[in-house]
Amino acid sequence: MKKEKLYQFFHPQSVAVIGASAKPGKVGNDIMVNLQKTFSGKIYPINLDDKEIAGLKAYKSILKVVGKVDLAVIAIPAKFVPQVVVQCGQKKCHNIVIISAGFRETGEGGMKLEQKINSLIKKYGIRLLGPNCLGYISTLLPINASFSADTPNQGNIAFFSQSGALGTAILDMVQAQKFGFGYFVSMGNKLDIGEIDLLEYFGSDSKTKVILAYLEDIRDGSKFISVASKISKKKPIIVLKSGKTESGQRAVSSHTGSLAGSVQAYSSAFSQSGIIEAQGVADFFDFAEGFSLQPLPRGNRVAVVTNAGGPGIILTDLLPQNGLELAELSSATINKLKKVLPVAASTINPVDVLGDAGSDRYGLAIEAVLKDNHVDSLAVVLTPQKMTDIKGTVKVIGKLSRQYKKTIVLCFMGEYKIVKNYPFFKKYSLPQYAFPLQSVKVLGKMLEYSQWKNKPLLMTKPKDYKKYYNNTKVKKVIKKSALTETDARNILEPLGFPLHSACLVKNKEQAIKCVNEIKYPVALKVVSAKIVHKSDVGGVKLNIKNDQKLSAEIIKMKKKFGAVSGYLVGEMVKGTELIIGMKHDPQFGPLVMVGAGGIYAEIFNDVAFRVAPISRSEAMEMISELKIYKILKGVRGQKSADIDAVAEVLVKLGDFALQFKEIKEIDFNPVMVMPKGKGCKIVDIRFLK
Amino acid sequence: MKKEKLYQFFHPQSVAVIGASAKPGKVGNDIMVNLQKTFSGKIYPINLDDKEIAGLKAYKSILKVVGKVDLAVIAIPAKFVPQVVVQCGQKKCHNIVIISAGFRETGEGGMKLEQKINSLIKKYGIRLLGPNCLGYISTLLPINASFSADTPNQGNIAFFSQSGALGTAILDMVQAQKFGFGYFVSMGNKLDIGEIDLLEYFGSDSKTKVILAYLEDIRDGSKFISVASKISKKKPIIVLKSGKTESGQRAVSSHTGSLAGSVQAYSSAFSQSGIIEAQGVADFFDFAEGFSLQPLPRGNRVAVVTNAGGPGIILTDLLPQNGLELAELSSATINKLKKVLPVAASTINPVDVLGDAGSDRYGLAIEAVLKDNHVDSLAVVLTPQKMTDIKGTVKVIGKLSRQYKKTIVLCFMGEYKIVKNYPFFKKYSLPQYAFPLQSVKVLGKMLEYSQWKNKPLLMTKPKDYKKYYNNTKVKKVIKKSALTETDARNILEPLGFPLHSACLVKNKEQAIKCVNEIKYPVALKVVSAKIVHKSDVGGVKLNIKNDQKLSAEIIKMKKKFGAVSGYLVGEMVKGTELIIGMKHDPQFGPLVMVGAGGIYAEIFNDVAFRVAPISRSEAMEMISELKIYKILKGVRGQKSADIDAVAEVLVKLGDFALQFKEIKEIDFNPVMVMPKGKGCKIVDIRFLK
Repeated sequence: MKKEKLYQFFHPQSVAVIGASAKPGKVGNDIMVNLQKTFSGKIYPINLDDKEIAGLKAYKSILKVVGKVDLAVIAIPAKFVPQVVVQCGQKKCHNIVIISAGFRETGEGGMKLEQKINSLIKKYGIRLLGPNCLGYISTLLPINASFSADTPNQGNIAFFSQSGALGTAILDMVQAQKFGFGYFVSMGNKLDIGEIDLLEYFGSDSKTKVILAYLEDIRDGSKFISVASKISKKKPIIVLKSGKTESGQRAVSSHTGSLAGSVQAYSSAFSQSGIIEAQGVADFFDFAEGFSLQPLPRGNRVAVVTNAGGPGIILTDLLPQNGLELAELSSATINKLKKVLPVAASTINPVDVLGDAGSDRYGLAIEAVLKDNHVDSLAVVLTPQKMTDIKGTVKVIGKLSRQYKKTIVLCFMGEYKIVKNYPFFKKYSLPQYAFPLQSVKVLGKMLEYSQWKNKPLLMTKPKDYKKYYNNTKVKKVIKKSALTETDARNILEPLGFPLHSACLVKNKEQAIKCVNEIKYPVALKVVSAKIVHKSDVGGVKLNIKNDQKLSAEIIKMKKKFGAVSGYLVGEMVKGTELIIGMKHDPQFGPLVMVGAGGIYAEIFNDVAFRVAPISRSEAMEMISELKIYKILKGVRGQKSADIDAVAEVLVKLGDFALQFKEIKEIDFNPVMVMPKGKGCKIVDIRFLK
Repeated sequence: MKKEKLYQFFHPQSVAVIGASAKPGKVGNDIMVNLQKTFSGKIYPINLDDKEIAGLKAYKSILKVVGKVDLAVIAIPAKFVPQVVVQCGQKKCHNIVIISAGFRETGEGGMKLEQKINSLIKKYGIRLLGPNCLGYISTLLPINASFSADTPNQGNIAFFSQSGALGTAILDMVQAQKFGFGYFVSMGNKLDIGEIDLLEYFGSDSKTKVILAYLEDIRDGSKFISVASKISKKKPIIVLKSGKTESGQRAVSSHTGSLAGSVQAYSSAFSQSGIIEAQGVADFFDFAEGFSLQPLPRGNRVAVVTNAGGPGIILTDLLPQNGLELAELSSATINKLKKVLPVAASTINPVDVLGDAGSDRYGLAIEAVLKDNHVDSLAVVLTPQKMTDIKGTVKVIGKLSRQYKKTIVLCFMGEYKIVKNYPFFKKYSLPQYAFPLQSVKVLGKMLEYSQWKNKPLLMTKPKDYKKYYNNTKVKKVIKKSALTETDARNILEPLGFPLHSACLVKNKEQAIKCVNEIKYPVALKVVSAKIVHKSDVGGVKLNIKNDQKLSAEIIKMKKKFGAVSGYLVGEMVKGTELIIGMKHDPQFGPLVMVGAGGIYAEIFNDVAFRVAPISRSEAMEMISELKIYKILKGVRGQKSADIDAVAEVLVKLGDFALQFKEIKEIDFNPVMVMPKGKGCKIVDIRFLK
């Protein structure tokens, strides 16, 4: 139903412009001009003056319009907007765009206005874009319901942006660039229509091949992941997310008034939903071009055909760091190349067709490498020499591209001679980059996405702990304002978390009795809700070897800490040290972490994150992303560690965190991983509310 | 003297074109056309036909020319070149450019031709550019002695390239771009004039502000470092080096026939000589623009002034990863901004002047932040809104830039509306980037270079080991085909390398006697030139605690290995584990390495490199580049390790390797670093010839 609503939103047959103006320079005039240039349906200018605008009869109110109004575009001062929304509701106009600014972004008064509008649209069943936005453009209907200076060319890319200004810049770039947009949507304050609605709509829109989004925040993290991961199995979603550093986040907050989630949460969410993340505006464009024009590569083997040695080497150099490799051409291909190319040409990859190559020679070389089964994709490098035939070469490559359906990117270097041929590149659906780096980056991203697309989508259903959670005893513990390690152990143990053997004791007699079960050497830890960093204050003693030393340590700690909940006597566990953790993110919920243990997590920043729930295979992926994975797998003939056991803890921790929301942070540090088959043990637990 | 020679080379008053042609499309014609368009001195066409060319009298041979010829440009088939070089020599023309291809790049025959030419130019005292090149252009004389399609605009950048084709592409880009070249030099096969000559010339040329070089190989690594590091104290050298990966290196070899040095060696050499390394062609341009137009920043504090929230945030996000930080504006500045900007504007950094800002408002905000002592540099972001005055804003910024002399970069986003204003940006010396990433990257590089420039240049004189090297005993050991650990110890010990205490023993009796000096626990290692990886084959036993166990281990090893040179009984040393190494690089000589020890060097790739000789401060820098430096410094209240002792080993190892060239590879693994003041100990040594 929602989807149908946005279909109506983007396919009106009649539009009212509330705040329409005949005065050039006014936003209400820009919208009129854009609509009249693009829209073939009925346009109703609405304004208080009631005067004719650009040959169209104007109305004092939308209620005065006789026919049906499918869409209202509102550009009047903020304070008058609510009453106009009421009129739209009364007129049964269920789709509106509020261009006007002066809402949430200006502070409390504006926020109140927004809330008022929100209850009105709910009352009347209205879908709303904005407020504080540029409007939207569909080149497909076509309609330009915005005050943009330009209307982009038609294309198969749907673009939506949380920044109107960035939108403007991008529309200007698109004018001079090599591709077009099907949709351009400025979301503004996202009071109603937001990223999830638009993802859903463009995801199911058959004319949209690539979805492009600029986001400053995401309102509902887990819904975003579930929607995006389904859509990106069908078509690529390229996202540019800003506000990823501390200063950036502060700037986002002051700009949009939204609470920014953590960088790790966003990165994890994007990678978990197969989203292609752009690292900047340039990437954003370059990725869009490649994904919208070319098929995805089937593998990582790249052929390079060039008329210039140097640039060919520069490009070749960039392959490995983008997950690609130089294809090894078959001997048949090399022989073929030897036949068709001059003697001085290089017939091994990168194939150098020499500076004086015309389009024919390029064509012969390219056809030979495209035929080769060892080649998954092709990068064509060209530098403009006197005898170079740019148009002819594009034409030849374009034809071969249609025939062989392998991924092709061009790196025609230069500007003056190249830029004027952009429409020609587009005609043959060939993505063109001025620099080797960009062409290789795009190929790499296309491969990465293609691999993600081919993985089965595992929807994870978290284990249900509801009954356990509602258990009176558990509830009582959870309600405590601060939880000790023993509290945490008592909650986790029945759920099958692999805790190391330990007993809570009050005195040295109980401690010595405990050791009968767990054997020396043991570790001794003080248990107290007041002492958070136990080891920093001398509250942990490792490797105690006999009764005498154990007694002495307990006496020492008693003196030091006074009244405490008790002492934990625990077995010493040997293995590879990891750290596992969980933290609630304001946008995405529980974020599960695994990292190299001890000082190394911090020093080498060797950590991996996922948003819960996480599937078993995601957990395995997390572990394999760690640098320390090499050690876990077993280096130099050593036995591999019990990675499965670690994965199980990660999955379980995610599920647990989703249901025990009171616990805001969990640390398992260290987790000792033993050889395969022997499991792992959580040695220390910290719960933070 | 050399410098003067190249002065003549770049300032001829008369030029002969050998192989001049009247036929359009011929290289010999392109050169004539370019010369006639640009050069005001005398031009002598030389060809066999002897016909007039473009109104100029032609000659059969350079010897027939009556006047003096300062420069000869040769574009005739390769095999005829040597005889023409002889004629140039006879004519006392001491500067020549060989455009012709067909030399080293075609194989052995071509290589022989080159050698012939080489002995000829030595005989006649000729300086030669090429062969197999595009020629050169100086916009300052001016002269275009190349067959390029374009002549760039005048500028303060000197560019030289090892790839002619890349040069062509770059000339095409420069046509459409925002800056000009003073010099453009295509080096071709670098038979005579190479990167070092050109660095020296442009380094002392007062009209050159920035040196830009594309290199595929460097012939004399250590000379390169010593020349480049002196010049880059005066002016920035920006280098794009290709062939840095394995596939790239293979491509370089097949392209230029040169042996590529290792990636680490190049990166170390560049950073040691203050060279600014471009990661791609785009960087190359962007860096050149920033460095050639703006002063260097004095610190890392950046102010951002923007008319668009989103792009401002994107830019702010990028500061930390480029070594920059968002400046905290003084309260005076914020108050000033509050006065001059509308209420809705953001007056904390990033300063948002709002979408409707005209050039005046931009000017007021920019002047306020430039005045602030907490601001070192400024990035101005602009998105083209309806009311935006691009030209006016550039003019205002340009004036303030001249007045306040702080580093300014522009990020005016868009293309259609921006590109046409390029000449205007240039007029005010403002570097302009379409995307935030590029503008921030340039600022970061300028800061990095400025910091390097301000460091004193320490020329290191390696310690002289000549006498020791010529010692008969030492010589005898060095001559051995394979060196054992004991050999290595015998060579290094007298030089003061901190070796751990150990004795070479033949049997258990000697071993036990040895322990009297070094105390238990000890380590036992087999010593044999045949056994390289001792620990992999059970040839190392650590932590032996008493006589009985020591005897047993010796018996065990005797059984296992049979006849060996002996056994090393050594003290067990506790400390932080490092690895130190040295490897000879074909281009740069000894490359010294330090890294985290044990498995961590490999797993976390925590290593730093420098080309020898290295100064003490470079050694300290190397150590501080390691991630494990945090641990060496002492984490969480722990005592810091003896970093000075490690630095001393690094310096010494570099000096040693420079003089003991027979040793191709040295490993100290592990080196145990003890607390400050206690030194470090080399526990295991491996020499490879």
